[in-house]
Amino acid sequence: MPRNEQYAIGVDLGGTSIKLGIVSRKGKIIKKVSKDTRAAEGPQVIIKQMLKGITALLEGEKFRIEGIGIGAPGVVSSKKGTVENAPNLPGWGKVHLGKIISDKTGLRCVVENDANAAAIGEMIFGSGKNYDSFVMVTLGTGVGGGIILNKKLFKGEFGAAGELGHITIDHAGHKCNCGSYGCIEAYLGNSYLIERVKERLEDAPESMINRIIKSGSRQLSPEVISEAAAAGDPFAVDFIRESGRLLGYAMASVSNLLDVSTIIIGGGVAGFGKTLTDSVKEGMTQRVLKSLQPRVKVLRAKLKNEAGIKGASSLVFYK
Amino acid sequence: MPRNEQYAIGVDLGGTSIKLGIVSRKGKIIKKVSKDTRAAEGPQVIIKQMLKGITALLEGEKFRIEGIGIGAPGVVSSKKGTVENAPNLPGWGKVHLGKIISDKTGLRCVVENDANAAAIGEMIFGSGKNYDSFVMVTLGTGVGGGIILNKKLFKGEFGAAGELGHITIDHAGHKCNCGSYGCIEAYLGNSYLIERVKERLEDAPESMINRIIKSGSRQLSPEVISEAAAAGDPFAVDFIRESGRLLGYAMASVSNLLDVSTIIIGGGVAGFGKTLTDSVKEGMTQRVLKSLQPRVKVLRAKLKNEAGIKGASSLVFYK
Repeated sequence: MPRNEQYAIGVDLGGTSIKLGIVSRKGKIIKKVSKDTRAAEGPQVIIKQMLKGITALLEGEKFRIEGIGIGAPGVVSSKKGTVENAPNLPGWGKVHLGKIISDKTGLRCVVENDANAAAIGEMIFGSGKNYDSFVMVTLGTGVGGGIILNKKLFKGEFGAAGELGHITIDHAGHKCNCGSYGCIEAYLGNSYLIERVKERLEDAPESMINRIIKSGSRQLSPEVISEAAAAGDPFAVDFIRESGRLLGYAMASVSNLLDVSTIIIGGGVAGFGKTLTDSVKEGMTQRVLKSLQPRVKVLRAKLKNEAGIKGASSLVFYK
Repeated sequence: MPRNEQYAIGVDLGGTSIKLGIVSRKGKIIKKVSKDTRAAEGPQVIIKQMLKGITALLEGEKFRIEGIGIGAPGVVSSKKGTVENAPNLPGWGKVHLGKIISDKTGLRCVVENDANAAAIGEMIFGSGKNYDSFVMVTLGTGVGGGIILNKKLFKGEFGAAGELGHITIDHAGHKCNCGSYGCIEAYLGNSYLIERVKERLEDAPESMINRIIKSGSRQLSPEVISEAAAAGDPFAVDFIRESGRLLGYAMASVSNLLDVSTIIIGGGVAGFGKTLTDSVKEGMTQRVLKSLQPRVKVLRAKLKNEAGIKGASSLVFYK
């Protein structure tokens, strides 16, 4: 490796495991480790696990490490390096994670909400590289996101901006976990999505999805839907198209409001592939104001499996 | 008047008339004139009319004028001072309005989209004075708006941000003039609003609105609805409440996205008063994420009849 290349450590703090990696300025993972989060044992243990992971990463290595980036769930103040109300981390409260890790390692530490870190990752390493402004949508258990405006993360008044999952597409629509109705998350969040497919499968005995589930005794999942769609199952293809158009409608509201017309889609459901992105583009183009129509771009995220580690490491190169 | 107070000229360019005024730094109109736009005769004539207005304003006056602010319809590049595709101004094309007026008058000239000028007006002179960030919604023929973030107008990538009227609340809802469906403008824009009332009046012969229209041979208008509501007509009150809640739902999407929780409502329909603002607050609070709920504020615009002139003049004090 070139001696003066820069490296950063990326830490992806999840409810089950902490994934860590050394990442080059070009976005290549050089080395990685994983530790159990041991979330139930509280913040002290989680932090110890994280430090063990960092030690394991650095052992015997002589990289020029610029700092540590941490992508965390919950409300993050990146200025103070605090993480608050992290879902799936019981008893977490408010933790000065950035200061603790920095004090223990002697390295600069940048903390950011994981959805925002994913957006910064795409800006620094991925599909957002050539765009000044874009909206990153992460489709997973929830629908999360980050907004990049003029190469900067848009955080809002109290750091909570970018809650793309809670843009409504139907004020009288499905009830969402957040308490509202018709949020796009209530259509495309994993469990809602599975629920929607299940309901419809009852009227579609011919769909290949039925056979995949029965023969392999597999659970219904976005992967199963993807497989069926890839094999040409009309039910699965239609379902992905409809989901894409709905996401496109939500993105049209965002685009009309922010005057940003590039959308990057990541997360598990992004495995729906081109069928999904094409229909997001279709739905969005139909619904944005005329002046925006020719500018609409819908891209797939470039950072895939290791998006968490890479996104977290990108915080060091971004700040 | 104090000798060293600052003054600006505000120009409100409308489809029928050009309203102009000398406005003090405190937001008081000292003098005003109005000229016919003569829109049908093209941009040259409109500009002449505007210059006549400015000359009339300045005649015999010895104010220390800091500059001229112009609020114009259409897409405005405030950097270049150009106004493009102004609706209601046929044959307008792209006009370097700022440079022309500045060259002819020798005064600094700032041009901005009229909805954005209204937002800046509220920030400099009005209800937004004490807020770093707020969303201004103007309810009129259309539903327009401006977004203030950290005391700055948010313009987006190409200057078209803030199209609040085209946030959808129902992807399968009423068709909107913009080509999309379920935009909040398709519920609260003047003509849509009147249409919604008309439809429902058929089933509400007891509503006072029927009597007001018949006895005074008046057209159905937001004012008539306001009058009926003020007199306690349940139909009118219910209608305003429902409209407010719908606007609140749209604002919840905006708030979740931008992390901005203060909304200022102006324009004709704002005459619906406290019944409207209360129900906007109700709808919005029900629908925003929990962390935002305690912060929701819905205010009425302070600049009323002369919002156009004052908003335009505020551009000079803002820039």
